[in-house]
Amino acid sequence: MYVLSQPSFFITCNPNLSTHVAADIPTIPKGTRDFSPDKMLRRNYLFHVIRDVFERFGFQPLETPAMENLSVLTGKYGDEGDQLIFKVLNSGDFAAELRHLNLSDGPPQSKQLLPLISEKALRYDLTVPFARFVAMNKGQIAFPFRRYQIQPVWRADRPQKGRYREFVQCDADVVGTPSLLCEAEIMLMINKVLQKLRLSDFTILINHRKVLKGMAEYSGLEGQELSYYTAIDKLDKIGMEGVVKELENLGMPGEKAFKHLQELNSDIGVHEFKLGHSENNDIVIGASEIEQVLSNAQHMNMPLDKIRFSPTLARGLSYYTGCIFEVKINNAQMGSISGGGRYDNLTGLFGVPGLSGVGFSLGVDRIYDVMEQLSLFPDFLGSSTTVLFCSLEASGLPFCLRAVTEARAEGIRAEIYPEEARLKKQLNYANQKKIPFAVLIGDEEVRANAWALKNLETGEQISLSAHEAIQKLKAHQANG
Amino acid sequence: MYVLSQPSFFITCNPNLSTHVAADIPTIPKGTRDFSPDKMLRRNYLFHVIRDVFERFGFQPLETPAMENLSVLTGKYGDEGDQLIFKVLNSGDFAAELRHLNLSDGPPQSKQLLPLISEKALRYDLTVPFARFVAMNKGQIAFPFRRYQIQPVWRADRPQKGRYREFVQCDADVVGTPSLLCEAEIMLMINKVLQKLRLSDFTILINHRKVLKGMAEYSGLEGQELSYYTAIDKLDKIGMEGVVKELENLGMPGEKAFKHLQELNSDIGVHEFKLGHSENNDIVIGASEIEQVLSNAQHMNMPLDKIRFSPTLARGLSYYTGCIFEVKINNAQMGSISGGGRYDNLTGLFGVPGLSGVGFSLGVDRIYDVMEQLSLFPDFLGSSTTVLFCSLEASGLPFCLRAVTEARAEGIRAEIYPEEARLKKQLNYANQKKIPFAVLIGDEEVRANAWALKNLETGEQISLSAHEAIQKLKAHQANG
Repeated sequence: MYVLSQPSFFITCNPNLSTHVAADIPTIPKGTRDFSPDKMLRRNYLFHVIRDVFERFGFQPLETPAMENLSVLTGKYGDEGDQLIFKVLNSGDFAAELRHLNLSDGPPQSKQLLPLISEKALRYDLTVPFARFVAMNKGQIAFPFRRYQIQPVWRADRPQKGRYREFVQCDADVVGTPSLLCEAEIMLMINKVLQKLRLSDFTILINHRKVLKGMAEYSGLEGQELSYYTAIDKLDKIGMEGVVKELENLGMPGEKAFKHLQELNSDIGVHEFKLGHSENNDIVIGASEIEQVLSNAQHMNMPLDKIRFSPTLARGLSYYTGCIFEVKINNAQMGSISGGGRYDNLTGLFGVPGLSGVGFSLGVDRIYDVMEQLSLFPDFLGSSTTVLFCSLEASGLPFCLRAVTEARAEGIRAEIYPEEARLKKQLNYANQKKIPFAVLIGDEEVRANAWALKNLETGEQISLSAHEAIQKLKAHQANG
Repeated sequence: MYVLSQPSFFITCNPNLSTHVAADIPTIPKGTRDFSPDKMLRRNYLFHVIRDVFERFGFQPLETPAMENLSVLTGKYGDEGDQLIFKVLNSGDFAAELRHLNLSDGPPQSKQLLPLISEKALRYDLTVPFARFVAMNKGQIAFPFRRYQIQPVWRADRPQKGRYREFVQCDADVVGTPSLLCEAEIMLMINKVLQKLRLSDFTILINHRKVLKGMAEYSGLEGQELSYYTAIDKLDKIGMEGVVKELENLGMPGEKAFKHLQELNSDIGVHEFKLGHSENNDIVIGASEIEQVLSNAQHMNMPLDKIRFSPTLARGLSYYTGCIFEVKINNAQMGSISGGGRYDNLTGLFGVPGLSGVGFSLGVDRIYDVMEQLSLFPDFLGSSTTVLFCSLEASGLPFCLRAVTEARAEGIRAEIYPEEARLKKQLNYANQKKIPFAVLIGDEEVRANAWALKNLETGEQISLSAHEAIQKLKAHQANG
């Protein structure tokens, strides 16, 4: 309730508050969501699995503030990205700065106004805040630095199905080493998380920025790399003919483009691909690095049939410089659920050059949706209530209170129905909350010093000693 | 890294990005904090203990969006509170609305401008969003509804020691029942959390809004309740004489005020206090409810010597109507670390009247600070790395990779140092990260199929089979 972490903060009593009654049912902002307890239990289960795997690989948690200085965020996501950053109004009399504004030409424009009234914004991803953190704390950090971060980010995208304005990102990065072991470990972490979630039918697509660069050169499109990447990345969406047309427009001869795309689309292995382009230095370097990653991963028991070399994979962010990858759930109507890559100079943006790193992100909302589609969430999720204590007569309440206390002392998640009410009403509440057991305490139980333990799924009811009942409830909770 | 939860979002490649090098080390906004891994481990430990207790009492997690509509937040925290709400600029061309502004009188004022450029804001506490959630979802909720919520809130307070602009609140509330069992259960939850954190020397101060109201009447200050509450609440700070002076200013005769304060300051029991004011209906009702709460709590094994009736406790928020309470750590230089109370009409603010509820908040930042002061955090916190695998020669790397994989498969939190480096450098890294064990793999270990397990605290090193080493590491991790 009232915030105690703020010293000497005293909100003035306002006896008229209750008269501010809004007759309309309130709403939440477009593109945002409430997570009710049943959704939270599932999301927490997801986060728990992810955290557990990340920590088993030596990654440690980091959290950064929701607000960053606009100077930190601006210019890192392209012009379109800048538009989508939620800006926070300066606090206090924010319009004070406007007094010096020349208004003779009419009302100010957004661009002109923004720097005068806002200097902070909500973070847009977790990568830039991470780079900012490393730049600010490089003296205190033990490198290679493995951190994971699970926090919401905000984007002023147009809300639509599956696209939100507030959503949680799950990132893990290692910075301070160029070692390709890190790429391999990331493959293993993805494998482990998805196995644990029973989403084992997936494919990791892998490519390398140097392979892309070499291919642009091979295609005679040097200087037009960006357009080349964008074109071939669309192979899945617009098909061979469409991409050939785009490459022709860039100046590549149609026949060569067609043959090139046939090769890219042929499920070719990375080694074979390297041999076929042995004259191209960039392709050789990039492909060799991918081979090294695969070899490392194999030594760590990674099932290599889950990784597929995909020379058309481009990924969007400009800061990638080495291996890049994406993860798709096979046979699910869903885009990629994870992706990442190596970057050589991310902290260079903040004046700390020369720190190579590699990282990836898990798309929690998409993983959640796929798991719902495939009914993969466990039926019983650890943190819901195990037993409801129901007092049948007021005279039995003290006995009932001692009983619920005893259960909790043994670690059992237990509630007591807080009002005198008919048993039917109490059990109805238990059903709504999917509580699997009830303990009924009436005069008879008090006399016999017993608990009537009712299994709410089967309806079975037995009279037990407190000790016996607790053992049963504990066993259920442990298996849940 | 790149956000996969947003379909078809493609950030344009910008090959010039790396030239935007900021020479200055970046900063974070005033009053906000990064939480580095060591702090995160401690905070997560705190949250884990709190969650565990909340769930044992049948409370379920809820999360609401960081942004709420301004119409939901405005007017709920008093004028001063409204000022401290962080407003979010409308996205897109936010200044478009200003075209209709009459600027002939000069630049617009903040108040006039705000509704034109902002319709969302960052939440200020968790209580109003909770009431908003209940009002929006009352048809789907099983009442009584027990929810807990652990999320950050934002306030544009002037930053100072121990006061932040972004901080986490930990709330638990039950709505939909007037039962005083809930108040008792809250006392037990507070007791349980603080016992688990080894903060067992605390006092819960309890009072009742009706007692306060009755005392204002007794003091002849009806109609001036607010000023009366504010005055007596200051007894600790400005002493008897100071408060007498304030009460005199309100019109209470000095001698009567003095006698009244002597009674309030006398560590009087609630029963005795009730008997002394048996003519005052409000005091009798309020005191009887407190007695009922104490009786309920006692049946649930609450040590009653931890609860003290404090007739001067007022608390700030206007929506409280029943029992109110605050928790202080004895002998710590620290304000209250928790507080809450009953409210009868919180959802009435959103058009859903008649839902009585009671809730409380734990001040996580203050609890953290007290625990640091008193060195109460466990030395070893579950989620840090247990062992670092060090490859001594490149030829042993495959063996080392299989070894680390084996350890992880057994649930051990294990890292491998990802580069060829001298052992000293590798162990230095382990020390910086406080990793308690290393496994050294050189040619000899590969030949003997053994692991050299080194205890980094004692320096002791023994050669073990993989199985033996894993048992040792598991045992350490389990006791950690």
